[in-house]
Amino acid sequence: MTTSAEKITLIAGNAHRDLAGAISRQLSIPLASAHFGRFPDGEIDLKVNEDIRGTDCFVIQPTCPPVNENIIELLLLLDCLKRASAGRITAVLPYYGYARKDRKDEGRVPISAKVVANTLIGCGADRVLTLDMHAAQIQGFFDIPVDHLYAKPVLLSKIRALEIENPMIVSPDVGGIKMARAYAKGLDNCDLAIVDKRRISGSQVAVEHVIGDVEGRNVIIVDDMISTGGSITEAARIVRSHGARKVVLAVTHGVLVGGAVEKIDAAPIDKLLITDSIPPQARMPRCAEIVSIAPLIARAIANIHRNESVSSLFDECPV
Amino acid sequence: MTTSAEKITLIAGNAHRDLAGAISRQLSIPLASAHFGRFPDGEIDLKVNEDIRGTDCFVIQPTCPPVNENIIELLLLLDCLKRASAGRITAVLPYYGYARKDRKDEGRVPISAKVVANTLIGCGADRVLTLDMHAAQIQGFFDIPVDHLYAKPVLLSKIRALEIENPMIVSPDVGGIKMARAYAKGLDNCDLAIVDKRRISGSQVAVEHVIGDVEGRNVIIVDDMISTGGSITEAARIVRSHGARKVVLAVTHGVLVGGAVEKIDAAPIDKLLITDSIPPQARMPRCAEIVSIAPLIARAIANIHRNESVSSLFDECPV
Amino acid sequence: MTTSAEKITLIAGNAHRDLAGAISRQLSIPLASAHFGRFPDGEIDLKVNEDIRGTDCFVIQPTCPPVNENIIELLLLLDCLKRASAGRITAVLPYYGYARKDRKDEGRVPISAKVVANTLIGCGADRVLTLDMHAAQIQGFFDIPVDHLYAKPVLLSKIRALEIENPMIVSPDVGGIKMARAYAKGLDNCDLAIVDKRRISGSQVAVEHVIGDVEGRNVIIVDDMISTGGSITEAARIVRSHGARKVVLAVTHGVLVGGAVEKIDAAPIDKLLITDSIPPQARMPRCAEIVSIAPLIARAIANIHRNESVSSLFDECPV
Amino acid sequence: MTTSAEKITLIAGNAHRDLAGAISRQLSIPLASAHFGRFPDGEIDLKVNEDIRGTDCFVIQPTCPPVNENIIELLLLLDCLKRASAGRITAVLPYYGYARKDRKDEGRVPISAKVVANTLIGCGADRVLTLDMHAAQIQGFFDIPVDHLYAKPVLLSKIRALEIENPMIVSPDVGGIKMARAYAKGLDNCDLAIVDKRRISGSQVAVEHVIGDVEGRNVIIVDDMISTGGSITEAARIVRSHGARKVVLAVTHGVLVGGAVEKIDAAPIDKLLITDSIPPQARMPRCAEIVSIAPLIARAIANIHRNESVSSLFDECPV
Amino acid sequence: MTTSAEKITLIAGNAHRDLAGAISRQLSIPLASAHFGRFPDGEIDLKVNEDIRGTDCFVIQPTCPPVNENIIELLLLLDCLKRASAGRITAVLPYYGYARKDRKDEGRVPISAKVVANTLIGCGADRVLTLDMHAAQIQGFFDIPVDHLYAKPVLLSKIRALEIENPMIVSPDVGGIKMARAYAKGLDNCDLAIVDKRRISGSQVAVEHVIGDVEGRNVIIVDDMISTGGSITEAARIVRSHGARKVVLAVTHGVLVGGAVEKIDAAPIDKLLITDSIPPQARMPRCAEIVSIAPLIARAIANIHRNESVSSLFDECPV
Amino acid sequence: MTTSAEKITLIAGNAHRDLAGAISRQLSIPLASAHFGRFPDGEIDLKVNEDIRGTDCFVIQPTCPPVNENIIELLLLLDCLKRASAGRITAVLPYYGYARKDRKDEGRVPISAKVVANTLIGCGADRVLTLDMHAAQIQGFFDIPVDHLYAKPVLLSKIRALEIENPMIVSPDVGGIKMARAYAKGLDNCDLAIVDKRRISGSQVAVEHVIGDVEGRNVIIVDDMISTGGSITEAARIVRSHGARKVVLAVTHGVLVGGAVEKIDAAPIDKLLITDSIPPQARMPRCAEIVSIAPLIARAIANIHRNESVSSLFDECPV
Repeated sequence: MTTSAEKITLIAGNAHRDLAGAISRQLSIPLASAHFGRFPDGEIDLKVNEDIRGTDCFVIQPTCPPVNENIIELLLLLDCLKRASAGRITAVLPYYGYARKDRKDEGRVPISAKVVANTLIGCGADRVLTLDMHAAQIQGFFDIPVDHLYAKPVLLSKIRALEIENPMIVSPDVGGIKMARAYAKGLDNCDLAIVDKRRISGSQVAVEHVIGDVEGRNVIIVDDMISTGGSITEAARIVRSHGARKVVLAVTHGVLVGGAVEKIDAAPIDKLLITDSIPPQARMPRCAEIVSIAPLIARAIANIHRNESVSSLFDECPV
Repeated sequence: MTTSAEKITLIAGNAHRDLAGAISRQLSIPLASAHFGRFPDGEIDLKVNEDIRGTDCFVIQPTCPPVNENIIELLLLLDCLKRASAGRITAVLPYYGYARKDRKDEGRVPISAKVVANTLIGCGADRVLTLDMHAAQIQGFFDIPVDHLYAKPVLLSKIRALEIENPMIVSPDVGGIKMARAYAKGLDNCDLAIVDKRRISGSQVAVEHVIGDVEGRNVIIVDDMISTGGSITEAARIVRSHGARKVVLAVTHGVLVGGAVEKIDAAPIDKLLITDSIPPQARMPRCAEIVSIAPLIARAIANIHRNESVSSLFDECPV
Repeated sequence: MTTSAEKITLIAGNAHRDLAGAISRQLSIPLASAHFGRFPDGEIDLKVNEDIRGTDCFVIQPTCPPVNENIIELLLLLDCLKRASAGRITAVLPYYGYARKDRKDEGRVPISAKVVANTLIGCGADRVLTLDMHAAQIQGFFDIPVDHLYAKPVLLSKIRALEIENPMIVSPDVGGIKMARAYAKGLDNCDLAIVDKRRISGSQVAVEHVIGDVEGRNVIIVDDMISTGGSITEAARIVRSHGARKVVLAVTHGVLVGGAVEKIDAAPIDKLLITDSIPPQARMPRCAEIVSIAPLIARAIANIHRNESVSSLFDECPV
Repeated sequence: MTTSAEKITLIAGNAHRDLAGAISRQLSIPLASAHFGRFPDGEIDLKVNEDIRGTDCFVIQPTCPPVNENIIELLLLLDCLKRASAGRITAVLPYYGYARKDRKDEGRVPISAKVVANTLIGCGADRVLTLDMHAAQIQGFFDIPVDHLYAKPVLLSKIRALEIENPMIVSPDVGGIKMARAYAKGLDNCDLAIVDKRRISGSQVAVEHVIGDVEGRNVIIVDDMISTGGSITEAARIVRSHGARKVVLAVTHGVLVGGAVEKIDAAPIDKLLITDSIPPQARMPRCAEIVSIAPLIARAIANIHRNESVSSLFDECPV
Repeated sequence: MTTSAEKITLIAGNAHRDLAGAISRQLSIPLASAHFGRFPDGEIDLKVNEDIRGTDCFVIQPTCPPVNENIIELLLLLDCLKRASAGRITAVLPYYGYARKDRKDEGRVPISAKVVANTLIGCGADRVLTLDMHAAQIQGFFDIPVDHLYAKPVLLSKIRALEIENPMIVSPDVGGIKMARAYAKGLDNCDLAIVDKRRISGSQVAVEHVIGDVEGRNVIIVDDMISTGGSITEAARIVRSHGARKVVLAVTHGVLVGGAVEKIDAAPIDKLLITDSIPPQARMPRCAEIVSIAPLIARAIANIHRNESVSSLFDECPV
Repeated sequence: MTTSAEKITLIAGNAHRDLAGAISRQLSIPLASAHFGRFPDGEIDLKVNEDIRGTDCFVIQPTCPPVNENIIELLLLLDCLKRASAGRITAVLPYYGYARKDRKDEGRVPISAKVVANTLIGCGADRVLTLDMHAAQIQGFFDIPVDHLYAKPVLLSKIRALEIENPMIVSPDVGGIKMARAYAKGLDNCDLAIVDKRRISGSQVAVEHVIGDVEGRNVIIVDDMISTGGSITEAARIVRSHGARKVVLAVTHGVLVGGAVEKIDAAPIDKLLITDSIPPQARMPRCAEIVSIAPLIARAIANIHRNESVSSLFDECPV
């Protein structure tokens, strides 16, 4: 409303301080100083050390594991900024935890992604900035603006830099076909295949089917996240057994729990391109190369602040 | 709160009075008398003629075409019941209009299904009862209870009555695989196939692919709705060209606009099983057989009123 | 909040694109490009084609017939702008549909004007700009600012241009006396009369009474709207039968349904001054002259945007 | 929800304990014991002395003068009951203060009647029961049920008991015509007249006009309230000067401030029938006869509690 | 959002026009012209006379006695500004009435301070500025920003000016120890004592205990408010009887009801420093010296408007 | 609303299943069967296995460490019950985490206890049942009913059973005086003392003061919680050094983190009476005796369900 509204406040919880630092460097805006401690009983103790009145606040906090700790820390930070008279508060969730629980697929379960949405709004978020949410419908869980970024341009430019010959995009399952098609389109309209592992009949026999001929091709398997790594490493194995040569994985969110690192190390994967939306594990898969989404998020923050289009960031290559 | 809370009020807008009548007969509860007129300028004029104080009101109104008229009529009816001291109001939408606009798939579009949700809540709905919504995530657009029914048991029992030999369930596209699998499971774990018509490569050539062998099989193509009938009639043609013998369609919602009736009549379809969630067209496809969901909805209403499980209606055969 | 907040976005639904165009020309601000289509089942499909982030949006949509279609289109447009990060959204309703249903005048009816208010707010309107609402109390249905314009200055200047000799303002019924008095005051404090057609006693006999002597006078009958035209044409006939010479009608909203055009053509009316708050009928009454309220609305929009007084637009001649 | 929901709690603030007592006797339900004190600085100190968990609470408090004290006391009482786990709370306002400020009739004024509505809802009222509100549109200021009673049947039966010969109902101004017509209808469809005192022309001369012939008639002037008594005593004088014989006043709310008692005593009024919606003044007009609305409100409370129609209380004689 | 957002509107109700005037002079910003009248029935009639669209409005209204009148006037003023399109509304309550009723200390009582909070928010306050609230937890009754000022720096500088030799700060009870300690810290870390009058045992005998030795010291008793003056005058007497020499009182809010002035005059008090958060009584205690908090509030308003820190106003001497 | 509303559903998260089991046995109502799992990434996976439609649900979950995990689990459970059509949901928090952050005691900190309140309400809690909250004002953070229990009667009856001769209640600091006084009153009005350890002057020297003579007395130190045990063990040491004989501790909440167990073992404490509001540590202090609050909570649940007074549970001995 006055001059300080032109000022951005960047602030980060503990979920991923490295990413926040990288975004801060991109924007040449220092992270606001804040204290994040714990009381002996585990309660979070936080205090923002600088005046942020009337500023345009961006709170960077992917709600990755430890997901519940990170959510509560985010909620307390939102409340703190609201009461400290922030001009506007954008919750920046490069990874949106609980996104897979987006509906009641059976009786008497919560819609956990809606609980997250309700608590963000209830604690003061004016808007949300997120990246490759598991289901786009989660936007409709909010009545505040949600800017939804795609890691695709970032990962694609890295894929291009690999100068893969005769490339083919592969979706690891039928659910990922839409995302895979967008990558294929962006990669000079290259070919597309799908790993289709399912019990077609009522029998218990799984059919490993690959739609499209991967024989002799260098394939890039794309997905939105690797959690335990089970299905994507299996997809890698299947395409290899169908004659694929190189196998590259390009994935947005590296949750990498439950032995995922070991599974990837053991699978026929030549390279894993993965973003830093989630802090890397202490030991990453040997083939992993981390691609930073900090520049993308930084540009989105800048555009939101200047009221410029965010979707234009994807114009050359829409998903 | 008092004795009349044990009384159900059934009331219907103009969207589908036949269905409401059938539900009413199932429950042996007469529809509440109400006046639904129009002023000369097209404004809706409505009045409920009976006292409904404290009763458990169920408003039956599928928001099928004319969708906007039906939505506004429903909103006015909800407001009317709320101000008339209804005990509880359940909006019963056997068909939920605008369900396909459930996310921002591009910049600067509304999430129309959320607009519908917000207006229902804002005008007084305490709960929602609906059937085969296009996306289950729409449940998360509400913070009131949503009971989501499936037409599957109703259509399945009709399919069984056809005593089809050597049956095979077919999904008309990859998006419908989950629904098709549920039908196959319910039909003695019969085989399942998928019509997979898509541009696999970046080229413009469409590949008509059928996953699973339909040769010589009697196929039942299942889907949640027929709008213009384009894709499902094409699917019928493809399976026939791949050697299928009988082709039966089993579909929940018959929107049937844009020449759908003619397309179906022209396609190699032996039977179309379709529910009455939407009022039938003046002329229906020759092969169409309407299967009423009135008993299902009536049972759901009775269970909701008596606080008995609604999901139990599907226990023998979960989706 | 930043520079683009100084930018106005003018956008119009389908209700009255001519009026929107005229307002746009007045302000020298082009209408924002948007797509308004229909799916084959009648669902509205809309997309705003330009970035409107942080701008001061004015959505021009009188909710005239087809009232329900126009309301839903408006709600979808509001939702779209809200999610696209509009800076502020003003719903501009030159005609407010359902305004006559502003209270429960009997048991078990909706307060439809409140339903409209609730849905506007629920879908994202930050403020409302409207014109000659049927009842001023509707302002209290909102907890957001409502700017209420009067067509009087526009119609009065047209009346003055007619250079009517010995003029007299006439209210067509007792309910319109306040509006008529304001016109009389504005027309050099000219005389005022009232047509008072009612059943004074319990008998069924209607008394046609004119309070004030219209004999030999040139009368101007003023009203807020003509719907079916019944009462105002009758008023014209009564004043003529009481000796009035010229009969001019000055009316804000020309709904003109149910044979209104024919009734007006058949009545002893010399001229009908009517605004363009509602799109004109294909055939208008022969005596009709349309007076544009586009300049008035354009000035109100400009003042709202610049935070200047809107009531000052009526200062020289308050209602 | 359980047995105690069948129990009514009647509770009264200090605004009108006599009326509350009368309602209590009618219902044979004692008023709940409560302490209403004042701290030395004028802050209200209140405590309900009995357990009211889960009961159906009716809070009787007309917001008559001292209006602001009575409103705050009512709000505190609502908050108290809500926090004490009341089953349902009905705010019973036999007189609704600030009802005349129901719209913005000029720039930069509050809509005070909406402020009252918002605070009632915000402090826990689940429903409202009121009597002869100044404008029926105030119902639309609420999104909770409002039961609106009319004193007409009560006053009419008193009028009938007076066995007035050749009676005529008179409205003291054009605004009251609708109410007057309802009384006339209820009094054997008797004749109706209107006192119409206004400046018809721009000149400053007031015209005292009586529509309908009161000569030799016994007139009953009806109105919703007497505040300072100015206009109704003037109306009495005018009808007398036009030849009326007896002049009876039948009025719902007796605010009676600013010398109203003296004005009425000085005016040619034979009888003033007035309800006890507001506590009587220490000295009432000599001709005043108080008619209790306690039985009417008691019946409405009973019907609301038993979920029986409230509008049926007026069936024989609708307004 | 535009240029006028840079404009402050200062407006005051009737609670304390002198203080508002002093703040206005401090800021060199005239009080907005407004009409505050009363209708004959005691209803408040108000109108703001200047255009305040888009401005940053500060409404100055301590809710001191007559507390209920002052609260309602404040609510009406908030509603008025909201509907007149204020840019932002800050309710400035130098004294927050009902603050002592901040919890349910027994069954079936209201939390009156929460009722005040709910009504302020419900009527349009965007933020609150207040001074020395009785319990800091009341901040948590709001979900809007609350700036909480302390009179301490103002009173301390006055105390320093008294050049009291060998001073000692005394808390009149154990509840005030935290406030007293802050004063001691600010007064060159001077000594601190506590009057501890209580029934230690179950017996009825009160023990007058002074923790810390006041013998021969000049004591300054500090407290947040004097209501009836009972306990603070008693504390004065106790310290004197324990050998204190001079006794100075420094108190924020001077409610001064129930004979407080007489009690203070009769007590061994040399000086009473008290702020003007509440209008002074017609006759003040002889020893009273009023210290204006107008400069402090003026600076807070300026800082809020310019989005500068408010807590910095207390930096040199935090509470 | 119907018969099943008379049914209680008891359900417990993982925070304290033993306590839930004990409450269940007290009420002879089995805990509802539910699945509480974790996904490999730490997200909570929960499902209620029984139909709970329309029942009166009590969710037992103290938000003790791990506090953030327990809060999120509680929120998900509330959402689950709400969507499963629970009749009413009471969140039962025998320990309310974050209660000590109940106000902004400095700039730019959250009010964490309000964040907890807002999220509970936002996820579906209809009411709250809690025990010995750190500050009673937190009740005002809610606009739903809060029943606040006291462990005092439970601990007192245990203290009485110890048959302590010549007992004296001691508060470990001035903040606890009110609670201590209530215990003293309940223990035959026994004597009361206060440990008053503070820096009285500005100097850094701490004064260990005991108000009341503990010499030769058997003291019972009471407090609402032991977190790290620092101040209460110090209080034990001080009273012993002042001549106390037996030292018994009676405390509601045993958080017991940061070496508390060791500190207690090392302190001169004869017995620690502590409730099971929080699950006991693997190794408890040697002198600890756990007193169950399960019967108290069970009775409160029963009374809430039957709409009987909860405050009556404390009638014989109010706090």
